[in-house]
Amino acid sequence: MKLVEAIIRPEKLEPLKDSFLKADIKGMNVRQILGCGNQHGWIAHNRGSSVMMNMLPKIEIKIVVADDKVEDTVKLIIDTVRTGEIGDGKIFVKPVEECIRIRTGERGDDAL
Amino acid sequence: MKLVEAIIRPEKLEPLKDSFLKADIKGMNVRQILGCGNQHGWIAHNRGSSVMMNMLPKIEIKIVVADDKVEDTVKLIIDTVRTGEIGDGKIFVKPVEECIRIRTGERGDDAL
Amino acid sequence: MKLVEAIIRPEKLEPLKDSFLKADIKGMNVRQILGCGNQHGWIAHNRGSSVMMNMLPKIEIKIVVADDKVEDTVKLIIDTVRTGEIGDGKIFVKPVEECIRIRTGERGDDAL
Ligand SMILES: Nc1ncnc2c1ncn2[C@@H]1O[C@H](COP(=O)(O)OP(=O)(O)OP(=O)(O)O)[C@@H](O)[C@H]1O
Ligand SMILES: Nc1ncnc2c1ncn2[C@@H]1O[C@H](COP(=O)(O)OP(=O)(O)OP(=O)(O)O)[C@@H](O)[C@H]1O
Ligand SMILES: Nc1ncnc2c1ncn2[C@@H]1O[C@H](COP(=O)(O)OP(=O)(O)OP(=O)(O)O)[C@@H](O)[C@H]1O
Ligand SMILES: [Mg+2]
Ligand SMILES: [Mg+2]
Ligand SMILES: [Mg+2]
Repeated sequence: MKLVEAIIRPEKLEPLKDSFLKADIKGMNVRQILGCGNQHGWIAHNRGSSVMMNMLPKIEIKIVVADDKVEDTVKLIIDTVRTGEIGDGKIFVKPVEECIRIRTGERGDDAL
Repeated sequence: MKLVEAIIRPEKLEPLKDSFLKADIKGMNVRQILGCGNQHGWIAHNRGSSVMMNMLPKIEIKIVVADDKVEDTVKLIIDTVRTGEIGDGKIFVKPVEECIRIRTGERGDDAL
Repeated sequence: MKLVEAIIRPEKLEPLKDSFLKADIKGMNVRQILGCGNQHGWIAHNRGSSVMMNMLPKIEIKIVVADDKVEDTVKLIIDTVRTGEIGDGKIFVKPVEECIRIRTGERGDDAL
């Protein structure tokens, strides 16, 4: 199992939920974060001396999928949220060793 | 070390904190998320055409434990939060390579 | 690639952003959590019988870096946020298998 974690523009959450629904991807979770990437968010030069990093609001969406679903999930996310402008976001893939459905005690891919 | 991450019903947080206290599990962190599972949260059929995925509020609780504590921690969570109804939640186990206590510089299981 | 995840005192976020800016560390994300460590946050003894675990507000900052940047990043965090008092926080290091910049499709360390 892998965790596919996408950090996206807030306005792309609804389109992405739609894409997941159509692709019958069911389990996911979502939270708000603040972040910056290569552009340091936005750097304020105040009287030429003080600099500050600016954090922009983003949405983080996490989906744990079977190993053989990772690339399709990544492609679906990119196809749905990409605008081509700076700040489109990042996808991270992380290992997950076990998943348990609390109601039934099922484990592994069956529990996803 | 492993991260045991449980996504539970909000009303189960206080009972779970109690269980952890009794089991002398000390380090943990908690946050609010929105999520959906197999039932797509709740799908609204509007005039028979539009569908929407609904995200329900959940609590995510994270506990980093030594490898040999994983199964006991999972069992404690299930025993405390399981109702047998749909939406009881999920547990994910993920690898953690290092832990550092910032105050002392301790590393590994000693730093948990 | 590794995820360096630091849980710190809220008042240390601005100094840490400054340190990252000076070290030219660019990508990161931040969120608010509640947590407790070895001291169980704070335990309330009420009439000698009821006990409760108290969760303190903390900031979680996540930075995905190339493998050879992990130790420098950890050191920078410790040097910036350590006070020597209880509650200074924790750093967790976790594996990340892939990173994708959504705008360009770049992968791996180039996408960080
Ligand atoms: N190395 C990183 N570690 C952790 N989070 C990151 C990292 N890089 C980016 N992020 C998160 O992803 C969000 C979006 O990043 P962003 O799309 O600006 O990436 P970028 O590398 O700057 O690409 P672009 O040049 O297209 O803007 C950031 O706001 C931050 O939350
Ligand atoms: N595959 C997944 N990836 C990420 N998060 C998930 C996944 N599946 C479930 N979750 C999270 O767990 C929460 C609870 O899920 P839920 O208990 O409804 O799981 P389920 O598989 O639908 O089981 P049940 O049939 O018992 O309802 C969701 O709201 C979501 O936050
Ligand atoms: N084992 C753990 N698993 C998950 N989160 C943890 C763990 N231990 C600590 N944390 C998180 O780190 C935060 C800070 O912990 P804290 O600095 O109090 O650690 P500590 O081990 O008690 O060290 P100290 O003795 O210096 O206080 C907690 O509020 C919690 O969010
Ligand atoms: Mg950017
Ligand atoms: Mg469900
Ligand atoms: Mg402590």
